[in-house]
Amino acid sequence: MTHSIAIIGASGYTGAELIRLIATHPSFEIAALAANSKAGQSVGAVFPHLRHLTLPDLVTWEQIDFSEIDLCFCALPHKTSQEVIAKLPKTVKIVDLSADFRLRDPEDYKTWYGNTHAAPDLQKEAVYGLTEFYREDIKSARLVAGTGCNAATGQYILRPLIQAGVIDLDEIILDLQCGVSGAGRSLKENLLHAELSEGTNAYAVGGTHRHLGEFDQEFSALAGRPVHIQFTPHLGPFNRGILATAYLRGAADAVFETLSAAYADEPFVQVLPMGETPSTHHVRGSNFVHIGVVPDRRAGRVIVVAALDNLCKGSSGQALQNANLMLGVDELSGLMLAPCFP
Amino acid sequence: MTHSIAIIGASGYTGAELIRLIATHPSFEIAALAANSKAGQSVGAVFPHLRHLTLPDLVTWEQIDFSEIDLCFCALPHKTSQEVIAKLPKTVKIVDLSADFRLRDPEDYKTWYGNTHAAPDLQKEAVYGLTEFYREDIKSARLVAGTGCNAATGQYILRPLIQAGVIDLDEIILDLQCGVSGAGRSLKENLLHAELSEGTNAYAVGGTHRHLGEFDQEFSALAGRPVHIQFTPHLGPFNRGILATAYLRGAADAVFETLSAAYADEPFVQVLPMGETPSTHHVRGSNFVHIGVVPDRRAGRVIVVAALDNLCKGSSGQALQNANLMLGVDELSGLMLAPCFP
Amino acid sequence: MTHSIAIIGASGYTGAELIRLIATHPSFEIAALAANSKAGQSVGAVFPHLRHLTLPDLVTWEQIDFSEIDLCFCALPHKTSQEVIAKLPKTVKIVDLSADFRLRDPEDYKTWYGNTHAAPDLQKEAVYGLTEFYREDIKSARLVAGTGCNAATGQYILRPLIQAGVIDLDEIILDLQCGVSGAGRSLKENLLHAELSEGTNAYAVGGTHRHLGEFDQEFSALAGRPVHIQFTPHLGPFNRGILATAYLRGAADAVFETLSAAYADEPFVQVLPMGETPSTHHVRGSNFVHIGVVPDRRAGRVIVVAALDNLCKGSSGQALQNANLMLGVDELSGLMLAPCFP
Amino acid sequence: MTHSIAIIGASGYTGAELIRLIATHPSFEIAALAANSKAGQSVGAVFPHLRHLTLPDLVTWEQIDFSEIDLCFCALPHKTSQEVIAKLPKTVKIVDLSADFRLRDPEDYKTWYGNTHAAPDLQKEAVYGLTEFYREDIKSARLVAGTGCNAATGQYILRPLIQAGVIDLDEIILDLQCGVSGAGRSLKENLLHAELSEGTNAYAVGGTHRHLGEFDQEFSALAGRPVHIQFTPHLGPFNRGILATAYLRGAADAVFETLSAAYADEPFVQVLPMGETPSTHHVRGSNFVHIGVVPDRRAGRVIVVAALDNLCKGSSGQALQNANLMLGVDELSGLMLAPCFP
Repeated sequence: MTHSIAIIGASGYTGAELIRLIATHPSFEIAALAANSKAGQSVGAVFPHLRHLTLPDLVTWEQIDFSEIDLCFCALPHKTSQEVIAKLPKTVKIVDLSADFRLRDPEDYKTWYGNTHAAPDLQKEAVYGLTEFYREDIKSARLVAGTGCNAATGQYILRPLIQAGVIDLDEIILDLQCGVSGAGRSLKENLLHAELSEGTNAYAVGGTHRHLGEFDQEFSALAGRPVHIQFTPHLGPFNRGILATAYLRGAADAVFETLSAAYADEPFVQVLPMGETPSTHHVRGSNFVHIGVVPDRRAGRVIVVAALDNLCKGSSGQALQNANLMLGVDELSGLMLAPCFP
Repeated sequence: MTHSIAIIGASGYTGAELIRLIATHPSFEIAALAANSKAGQSVGAVFPHLRHLTLPDLVTWEQIDFSEIDLCFCALPHKTSQEVIAKLPKTVKIVDLSADFRLRDPEDYKTWYGNTHAAPDLQKEAVYGLTEFYREDIKSARLVAGTGCNAATGQYILRPLIQAGVIDLDEIILDLQCGVSGAGRSLKENLLHAELSEGTNAYAVGGTHRHLGEFDQEFSALAGRPVHIQFTPHLGPFNRGILATAYLRGAADAVFETLSAAYADEPFVQVLPMGETPSTHHVRGSNFVHIGVVPDRRAGRVIVVAALDNLCKGSSGQALQNANLMLGVDELSGLMLAPCFP
Repeated sequence: MTHSIAIIGASGYTGAELIRLIATHPSFEIAALAANSKAGQSVGAVFPHLRHLTLPDLVTWEQIDFSEIDLCFCALPHKTSQEVIAKLPKTVKIVDLSADFRLRDPEDYKTWYGNTHAAPDLQKEAVYGLTEFYREDIKSARLVAGTGCNAATGQYILRPLIQAGVIDLDEIILDLQCGVSGAGRSLKENLLHAELSEGTNAYAVGGTHRHLGEFDQEFSALAGRPVHIQFTPHLGPFNRGILATAYLRGAADAVFETLSAAYADEPFVQVLPMGETPSTHHVRGSNFVHIGVVPDRRAGRVIVVAALDNLCKGSSGQALQNANLMLGVDELSGLMLAPCFP
Repeated sequence: MTHSIAIIGASGYTGAELIRLIATHPSFEIAALAANSKAGQSVGAVFPHLRHLTLPDLVTWEQIDFSEIDLCFCALPHKTSQEVIAKLPKTVKIVDLSADFRLRDPEDYKTWYGNTHAAPDLQKEAVYGLTEFYREDIKSARLVAGTGCNAATGQYILRPLIQAGVIDLDEIILDLQCGVSGAGRSLKENLLHAELSEGTNAYAVGGTHRHLGEFDQEFSALAGRPVHIQFTPHLGPFNRGILATAYLRGAADAVFETLSAAYADEPFVQVLPMGETPSTHHVRGSNFVHIGVVPDRRAGRVIVVAALDNLCKGSSGQALQNANLMLGVDELSGLMLAPCFP
């Protein structure tokens, strides 16, 4: 059985990544692609790397006949996304890749994003899309909110540890290095090759990054009490990949065993042998997460490092994994591409 | 029906690329992986990006039971390859990725590689592995010689044009930019990140690059007279990709029409609209070739640019395409991965 | 004696490079820096790498008191440059880094740049700024037109050879790889790190690049007859550097001797030993040009490769060298920084 | 007055960087260059970017006539360095760039480096080379031990804060991203462009990096009690630069004021305005350090970020700064090159 898929926001990087993944999916067929600013163009004109595929031309999202769509990925910027999704028929299943439905509390949304949410009902309905931890809810959801890519990386490290109570909740520091595609296809000076290559810098230092909203919401819910981690992202001169280094208080053995047990049956999350740490090179282009645990020289302190591809497992791969669950097909479909190395 | 596959030389980049591609192949199963210097290790230890796969550990090639192998990829260095293949049972089908069986004439081999060929009978038997042009021979071959990655790129531009007689055979200049993975996983100073990134240089200038042996052999055979092109490769600061810029004499329209006709039914070769030129970014990680034709401002001169991924279409992807033909499975199997961009 | 310097267009890359070079110049002092869109800001705010310098804040060019300026560098976009320079007092010496005064013929200018020149008198007055070949004229010039960076690279190879008559004037092919800083600090999709890194492509193929206007003008004047070369630039994933590979007809020995003799006394142009070729890595951040000559395997054909830093020798370094001459100071002042490798 | 300089270990990156810097030093003259493995070669053959300089050919260090040398830089690997320096005449001033004389306690040395120190007397004599904090000792020293590049970066953040008592000494976490030139010109698989570019990874996680020996020694001495920080370096895909992100407990204002006061008169250390953070792009190729302070959202926590160029301020620039002091010349001589951006 073939499922009919639409993508709104198909001219950005997460849109292109969805098309790349669905291209080898055995039972999904792309029926409509929308990108209002480039409507009328072929996908190959906007993304020449996809020119070998037979795909519908880009249209506006208003032109899509949703009666023929089983599931719609929405890869629009936040704020636009909530406005568009509010206008889609309530019968169509939706995986949203924006930030609009990640936070359940309208006040939290306003705090982190600055505007009053335009679709609070949908916000209430949406299921948080971190597949491994919301799998059952996602299966029956109509609207799934894709997580932030940094937020996903941090949660793969921290959720099992918070749940198991093996780390000090008040002493969590998360240091990230992010590839540039996470910033999207936007024309900003600091994203130019000449500005970004050959060096690195921190940004959103001191607790201002919006993904902290997700961390606060999820970790506090898990712990049953407020949890506020420290989080500093850095921008690195590479296109794909997030490396998260977590500085934690707890016993390294307990941390390692907790993570190993949590992910023992997860096809996409690999816990490396104790003492080894991952590299973003080794997950590039794939839906895999690699996690490594190392005890610090100071007893009671442990470092956990996780790597994933922000565009894939951190965004479009996660979205596809969720779509598979929502449509009742094999969760791994279209997602077993091996990483592209070197 | 599942085919049993062995890879000898599995610890190099082309070996890893074969594993990556076969990982999603519907009817190939990797039965044995040899890498004599790393025998005993797991693939995940040598290539952590493949750690999610269930694969046999690395062995020496002598340990492989070839009675259970349908086809063996040989990804060894040249010279070693001819020695090893000479010792393999004559019943096993082989796709060799080295330079050892590309040149049909033992004298040519000696000229370009410096040593007397150790297996001249096999050299005679081998079919040149440029799939689109040797498809029928490859289907019935036992031993196929993978082409040089630069040689493949140049031939995609030039073979149809030479055959059609639409360019001047004495005035062919081929200028290449090659990604560094073409040099393999070898420890050389000029391949270090600190030496190679952030700049470029020509190498093997003046007609000394060994892939000229292939060009001379193939183009002269096609033309029925000696053809000696000019060829200058450059080493660029990127891992995957070859961009070939050919400076030719002929009518741009005839060149464009000849190429368009030649590749009209080829699933992996895309001729861009007249006047557009390709980018290696848009074929990275895939088996596709993009070709563009542009007339020069001086009448009678035309520039043709081609892009492919040296590790995939230029090497391991080509090898898999040939293996598909040799084993009678769909030529596209395992090869329709879309390019990984950005 | 200290010379008072102004820079108009100080917020672009060539402006920043001028400041970097002048920072260690023994007798130049920056008296005014203009960047109309960023007037009021400090240089450190716009270019944090210059924050250690004591510099005047950015102003509009209209705010500069030119009665106190000995020489003004103008690093504006073309078209804007001619309009601004036309309004500057005729007493101030000017080195223009734009394309506006490179072509002497108003018709040529219109052909290549599309608009009628707004200051044809100044166009007539301007001296072409390729220092090694216009040194005497530059010394007494009031207005010097900096050359195109690609145009400079090609001319370092070709001018001596054309003048000496040792190559076939109708068979000149120039293939270039250019670093991205040559495109300036402009917000274009193809200049984003995510689009540009990890690959390469040709652009302005077929004879449409504007620097051909300079080649045509200069080579035809030198030869006393029309000379129209073929020229294809490529965009490489590196910030600084141009590598030009010229395919020529002539005797390699004569070519080598001609270049060696031409540059024997030039402090910034180094001809490598016969058979060696240069790398952009080895001129990065400096005012040096490296040139190498290699005979092709086909008699009568020769390849010449040149490397320089587009922002320095190809633009701001050249401009400073010219300013030194115009103000009667040592030509090498401020320009002997060694390349920054690795 | 001109000072006669020798460099032992001139064929590595720190050796090359010393030559680059000394090339524009007004009163230093390179009298001898040793590189035993490449003795007999010209510098231009080993480092083509230095080919424009008039320099002595490489010799073995045993061939140097030290009676004519005022100061010798020793840029050898650790362990070799202590053996060679022990054999040099006691009259020659030495700046050692290896790790051999950084630790004052022979036991500490053995703990971190594994071998018994071969020159414990020299170890005792050596002055630790972090210029801003040992300036007076360095002026009168005969033997100065260059610091580790990571160790330098961390100390620029932490020394003033420890000394002023404004941070919690038991809660210091230092997270670093290091450019690859810090690993030297060594042929290791993980330093190849194909392995390193386009991604990042942590290494020496958990407190095993040798620069911790320096941190422990220096911070404990400063505090008058044991201080053991947490420290995780990451390897980034860029050649030059270290970015250190320190997670500290203390009042952001006090931290900012302490750092601002400490470096108010230091020519090479720039404290950015409160809330701004630095980038390695903006110190590349220079002797400058940029430091930024940001309060965390959680009261009592503060993040300090520092950036420097590991080859320059972290190694050879520091060495030259120390040599200037030791020879009584202006401390800034040869070191005011502006960063090379982009």
